[in-house]
Amino acid sequence: MNDSEILDAIQWNADGLVPAIAQEHDTGKVLMVAWMNREALALTISEGRAIYWSRSRRKLWRKGEESGHVQTLREIRIDCDADVVLMQVEQIGGIACHTGRHNCFYRRLENGRWEEVEPVLKDASEIYGRG
Amino acid sequence: MNDSEILDAIQWNADGLVPAIAQEHDTGKVLMVAWMNREALALTISEGRAIYWSRSRRKLWRKGEESGHVQTLREIRIDCDADVVLMQVEQIGGIACHTGRHNCFYRRLENGRWEEVEPVLKDASEIYGRG
Repeated sequence: MNDSEILDAIQWNADGLVPAIAQEHDTGKVLMVAWMNREALALTISEGRAIYWSRSRRKLWRKGEESGHVQTLREIRIDCDADVVLMQVEQIGGIACHTGRHNCFYRRLENGRWEEVEPVLKDASEIYGRG
Repeated sequence: MNDSEILDAIQWNADGLVPAIAQEHDTGKVLMVAWMNREALALTISEGRAIYWSRSRRKLWRKGEESGHVQTLREIRIDCDADVVLMQVEQIGGIACHTGRHNCFYRRLENGRWEEVEPVLKDASEIYGRG
């Protein structure tokens, strides 16, 4: 694999990032969207697990490094403009969201409000420890 | 519906935009990702079809306005950070991508290369006319 060519194909934004979608390979549910820089995408491919760039912490974010909720890579695609990455993943533990829900898209527009429509499966304090 | 509250909930980026994923409601396939500004999201909700903000053309983009490949809105969600929109849509004509493919994620990483793995269903010149 020529990493450089794979990475050069991407249309990185002005910050050197690309949005990456994690989709659950067997249910088709969209779990989350985060960002990757060149290093994060290269590591995602080489390690076979989702590794993002945390914009808030300004460092690599090996998804699951604290929670154990690793996303194992099954497949990776890019779109026609090569400015979005789509991953098929296996979500270890069945929880992708830091709120303890299956996925991050738990608010649905209903009757003119964003309603929470997905249950919390595990309390965040249990996931991340109490300190 | 209080449009203002719905829109104020979104964490718009520095350019006043948010990425929006269109997912096919019955197959679960991710069709495309584009961007919305406040007006685009408001119109998407009020008109019940995907309306994006074209960053290259700097104007509203009523998906399907030229191609007829309208995306009818079935459901709309936001993620935990309220900085990504996820729509369940019905893809009219079964073609989301301007290349004439079902969806925009037609390149998959295989043997160290981004390989085209989805067929062109309709030639772009047929979709957009020959001039």
